[in-house]
Amino acid sequence: MQNILNYLKDNKARFIRELCDYVRFPSVSAQPVHRKDLEACARWLFQHCQKIGLQAELQPTAGNPIVLASTPRRNSSRKPHHLIYGHYDVQPPEPFDLWRSPPFEPRVQGNSLFGRGASDNKGQHLAHLNAVEAYLKTGSELPCDLTFVIEGEEEVGSKHLSDFLRDKRSRLRCDGIVISDTGLVSKKHPTLTYGLRGIAALELKLTGPSRDLHSGIFGGTVDNPAMVLCQLLAQLRDKKGRVAVPGFYDDVEPLTSFERKQLARLPFQERAYRKFLGVPKLLGERGFSPVEQRCARPTLEINGLTSGYQGEGSKTIIPAWASAKITMRLVPNQKPERVRELFVRRIRKICPPTVGLEFRAEHGGEPYVIAPQSRGAQAGLRALKKAFGREPVLMREGGSIPIVNAFKKILNADSLMLGLALPDDNAHSPNEKFDLEVFAKGMAMSAHLWQELAQD
Amino acid sequence: MQNILNYLKDNKARFIRELCDYVRFPSVSAQPVHRKDLEACARWLFQHCQKIGLQAELQPTAGNPIVLASTPRRNSSRKPHHLIYGHYDVQPPEPFDLWRSPPFEPRVQGNSLFGRGASDNKGQHLAHLNAVEAYLKTGSELPCDLTFVIEGEEEVGSKHLSDFLRDKRSRLRCDGIVISDTGLVSKKHPTLTYGLRGIAALELKLTGPSRDLHSGIFGGTVDNPAMVLCQLLAQLRDKKGRVAVPGFYDDVEPLTSFERKQLARLPFQERAYRKFLGVPKLLGERGFSPVEQRCARPTLEINGLTSGYQGEGSKTIIPAWASAKITMRLVPNQKPERVRELFVRRIRKICPPTVGLEFRAEHGGEPYVIAPQSRGAQAGLRALKKAFGREPVLMREGGSIPIVNAFKKILNADSLMLGLALPDDNAHSPNEKFDLEVFAKGMAMSAHLWQELAQD
Repeated sequence: MQNILNYLKDNKARFIRELCDYVRFPSVSAQPVHRKDLEACARWLFQHCQKIGLQAELQPTAGNPIVLASTPRRNSSRKPHHLIYGHYDVQPPEPFDLWRSPPFEPRVQGNSLFGRGASDNKGQHLAHLNAVEAYLKTGSELPCDLTFVIEGEEEVGSKHLSDFLRDKRSRLRCDGIVISDTGLVSKKHPTLTYGLRGIAALELKLTGPSRDLHSGIFGGTVDNPAMVLCQLLAQLRDKKGRVAVPGFYDDVEPLTSFERKQLARLPFQERAYRKFLGVPKLLGERGFSPVEQRCARPTLEINGLTSGYQGEGSKTIIPAWASAKITMRLVPNQKPERVRELFVRRIRKICPPTVGLEFRAEHGGEPYVIAPQSRGAQAGLRALKKAFGREPVLMREGGSIPIVNAFKKILNADSLMLGLALPDDNAHSPNEKFDLEVFAKGMAMSAHLWQELAQD
Repeated sequence: MQNILNYLKDNKARFIRELCDYVRFPSVSAQPVHRKDLEACARWLFQHCQKIGLQAELQPTAGNPIVLASTPRRNSSRKPHHLIYGHYDVQPPEPFDLWRSPPFEPRVQGNSLFGRGASDNKGQHLAHLNAVEAYLKTGSELPCDLTFVIEGEEEVGSKHLSDFLRDKRSRLRCDGIVISDTGLVSKKHPTLTYGLRGIAALELKLTGPSRDLHSGIFGGTVDNPAMVLCQLLAQLRDKKGRVAVPGFYDDVEPLTSFERKQLARLPFQERAYRKFLGVPKLLGERGFSPVEQRCARPTLEINGLTSGYQGEGSKTIIPAWASAKITMRLVPNQKPERVRELFVRRIRKICPPTVGLEFRAEHGGEPYVIAPQSRGAQAGLRALKKAFGREPVLMREGGSIPIVNAFKKILNADSLMLGLALPDDNAHSPNEKFDLEVFAKGMAMSAHLWQELAQD
């Protein structure tokens, strides 16, 4: 093991340079204009996998390609087989003006590498690739067979991954999946995530007059779609901070007292948290701690509002339409389709007859939990402890990795979530970064992990 | 008079070509990028005034220039002096994709000329210029001295006109102002407008977290500025369609029964109106007819909403801020400053401590009424009848021409509003047009008007 860890140390500077090369691709899956960049990014990754000694393939899909890369193996191999999942696509960088340096010009400052995708998710799966490189280049025997599955559509709902998993089911048959796409509570709290929230996204559009109307000539006689939108959305949250959609909480599995105890172990300082987010006051569902609120309770968020004139100055109109982008975060055992249906039913019920109503379902993903006592989870906890030199914590994550459910369903395998993103990494925000110390510890964790998993 | 009317007929084709030339300037005052276009447009107008025989000047202001043009006069002149007001600036053309032909490439189709500004207001004041040209070019004696004041900032609140009027007070001393910037009920109902609504515009911005946040990682613990914006705005209209801002109606002068009778004379077909606007159902303040609602009752409209991600696909964020553009239409005797103050007070009162609050006051203008029995109004009614061959109607207009109050205050003169815009001219909307028959009748009306006003 020591020569593997030495290799990782000796190549640190190159690993950072390679991460910079990787981050430089503006692989924004939500924006069709970046299709070519996604292809170029996938090609870079594919070539990188080949270079470090993996048997790599660039697999086309109906969307962005998937990079599939396996460790070389003998036919007689009876080692456990693990998949490592990651995604090379990134969130949109907008708004550009809030970035201190351009999102796709990676910049190392102190112990951080800034750039869109540095943490979510390029840096995290590169840590695993580097660990595997260390095994291969030092001639060390890998205790597991490994297959990397790195896709390009995670940020838009992994639309083509399930089909891909089904197609390659026999090749991808495995004992488990390792995913580093979650959070690390802090550098002092290496973290195993045993649950994720699900998601249901949709867009709601209200149509009023057939065109923007002069608010002087017509104002007073017709309804205003922007006002109706506000009145509808305002009714979706009650005074206790709960989602006011009838039936929304029906399928929610209550937190056990064991879980509430585990979550209470996690460090949380309200004042520092508030300051970090820059908000004057926190707000969450009454009766739950902030940690519970953000990882184990469902939410409804407005992600965007669009209506009428948004340019400089004023334009005296009644807008022809108004729209909102909505996501709901789900917890076990809520189902995205069911929750979306409840939402639509609610809006239809309270929408006045003065406007038209359109819905567009966007991506969805189910919530997920595994037993923290399972053998895979225990191996993950040991690897974390060895790499970070600290007792790891167990947590649930507020974000969603919908494909975890696809792995379970299609490959019948559980996912081990060993996240390397710090809370201040600004995932999905301007000035996203990746901590380079965590990058190094992540590589070591990965190197240990294959030993621990093989010992099972 | 006949040779003047003949001149107008004989030159009809050229007048339309000149209006096309004029509409071709994208003189959008709300958008700084068009500053040069505004200057070029003003210069064209100035040269046009010179060409038809007026003594014209291009007057600089701290904003866009004002074109000032007078009929030639002898020192001994004892004729009445009237001003003709207009504006060469136009509303923003957005959204472009709804225009059937480009907004600044005027297109004649049937009896209409399509283009941004064709009706509001280029075509309307050009009708007066053409009538004056007819007097001058046929060598006919003008019964009044006339001065055109055509500004370039009406659509952004006429910021520099008042100063200009004050500076030129002695030169602009006059017996009255003629403005064609209002509506014509229909071609069968030549219209004298005796009242206007005022306006108070403002922008409201709510600030939440210091940046867009990942709605999975943080969602559930912080308030969402877009949701708060919806909840605040939703509270500003009650179930009777009234503005729910305490004190908002305190200064509203009730409609007299004479006025309600006059307004009831105006043709109004709910079904056709609804169809024309493309709305499934009308909505207005309970207890008032649609005609009253849109010209004699105050309103509050959301003109635009902006928050979070508005691009393609979805972005799972809690937006850092949310904003709304608001205008309130006012009736006598509401004051814009007072109403804005009531609005701000209300929002401050109901805004939760989880977000920050910012206001920006935009333009404002007071409502206006004149006595329909006045001599000027009677002269206007006679000119309308002669040009259109129909009995004119008296109405109040829902739109705002804030400068009417400035004329009253600074020049102590009343404005005669003889509008030439048809209800389907799409002012402030895509596919704005000007009716060419009304254009011709407007010229004749103007030619008659100077006779009628001089007879007073």
